[in-house]
Amino acid sequence: MTRYHHKVRYFETDQQGVVFNMWYLGYFDEAMTAFLAAGGLPYAKLISAGFDVQLVHSEIDWRAPLRFGDEAVIEVRATRIGRSSFTLSFDIGGNADVHAQTTYVVVAADGSGSRPIPNLLAAVLD
Amino acid sequence: MTRYHHKVRYFETDQQGVVFNMWYLGYFDEAMTAFLAAGGLPYAKLISAGFDVQLVHSEIDWRAPLRFGDEAVIEVRATRIGRSSFTLSFDIGGNADVHAQTTYVVVAADGSGSRPIPNLLAAVLD
Amino acid sequence: MTRYHHKVRYFETDQQGVVFNMWYLGYFDEAMTAFLAAGGLPYAKLISAGFDVQLVHSEIDWRAPLRFGDEAVIEVRATRIGRSSFTLSFDIGGNADVHAQTTYVVVAADGSGSRPIPNLLAAVLD
Amino acid sequence: MTRYHHKVRYFETDQQGVVFNMWYLGYFDEAMTAFLAAGGLPYAKLISAGFDVQLVHSEIDWRAPLRFGDEAVIEVRATRIGRSSFTLSFDIGGNADVHAQTTYVVVAADGSGSRPIPNLLAAVLD
Repeated sequence: MTRYHHKVRYFETDQQGVVFNMWYLGYFDEAMTAFLAAGGLPYAKLISAGFDVQLVHSEIDWRAPLRFGDEAVIEVRATRIGRSSFTLSFDIGGNADVHAQTTYVVVAADGSGSRPIPNLLAAVLD
Repeated sequence: MTRYHHKVRYFETDQQGVVFNMWYLGYFDEAMTAFLAAGGLPYAKLISAGFDVQLVHSEIDWRAPLRFGDEAVIEVRATRIGRSSFTLSFDIGGNADVHAQTTYVVVAADGSGSRPIPNLLAAVLD
Repeated sequence: MTRYHHKVRYFETDQQGVVFNMWYLGYFDEAMTAFLAAGGLPYAKLISAGFDVQLVHSEIDWRAPLRFGDEAVIEVRATRIGRSSFTLSFDIGGNADVHAQTTYVVVAADGSGSRPIPNLLAAVLD
Repeated sequence: MTRYHHKVRYFETDQQGVVFNMWYLGYFDEAMTAFLAAGGLPYAKLISAGFDVQLVHSEIDWRAPLRFGDEAVIEVRATRIGRSSFTLSFDIGGNADVHAQTTYVVVAADGSGSRPIPNLLAAVLD
């Protein structure tokens, strides 16, 4: 499990005073990158090995929102590992209460389609 | 059903050459507003009647992405109407293939909590 | 002169109820692309001819802001044409009052550095 | 002088592989807030004292861009203090080379117009 920290930025909060929904997907993208890096696989290394990841599905539950100035802590876990896809969960607690699951498919970095999960990625997800 | 049109902006596309995932939630927010307005309920009218909406759940499936210059057409439909919440579906076709469902809860505009769906909103969703 | 139209999006407005400053640069980028396209040079054609443009300087004056729901009209004009750079002005009127000038340098699309303004671009700027 | 740190996010980089221009204004906004906080004036304290700030002018020079993964260090300095307005400079060095100056006007937090720079803000700017 990796903890990704994000300090909410002013422009991410809307007229309701809470983080606008789309920014959470931006946070999760950074959190995914941090999760891989914490496991020894910086994104640049994944790319130079010839692989990339693409989102195929995401589900988000908003129970209590983040606000300007909040220091979000996002817990990232691998919850499913398939043949060419895997799922990460993202949990934000503290004053906020937001949970998400995103499924990624592994693709060739040159755009030639999906690939089985390579060993260097499997080692991070296990 | 309402069709919302969006021309993909340069900065919405990332180094993979496709629209970065978070912007779809931005599109759907505008599409939701357009859906209400097309049904006779501009967002400002909802607010001045004392109501607002908040996202509680969203699911997105990305099968084929939007790219720079694409003219996205997003079809919006009400798929579920509950007591204080409702669900809209968002479908992007053409060269792209993206589908989403978002559930909204009706709240008091003054922040005092959830409310049953008011008549002026129910009339749009039915 | 080209008029670029933009309907302000909800998430572009902040807790002060006005468009957050950075989004204007996003609008101007789209307005620049629209200006070139209106002159017969879609961005894709510029790229396939081997050229691209990069911002080197921008100045923005905010006198009265855009708000949610505003339909901005941005007037774009070429105000200076140099050897390898040019300047466009962006003027937003109506209820708002925002003015900007941005200088772009022409570069090779393959990243090999600046280039004199090519004829197909000069024809649009003149 | 305050140093504000920002790790460039994936979605802030465009198809040219560099940070899209508008995000710099987002960075500078956070850097301004950090500058005030480092001087003992968190933004919330400014607001609760009855004041806010608005941008009136910004100038940006891009000489070398930030890229994905860059850890930007933004140096913030007060370069001019007027009666009701002040100017901050923002300098990004390292592999990048970006410089900006932004002028802010002090306004009443209740929207009733501009105000002389209050003592609690002057103490930070001096």
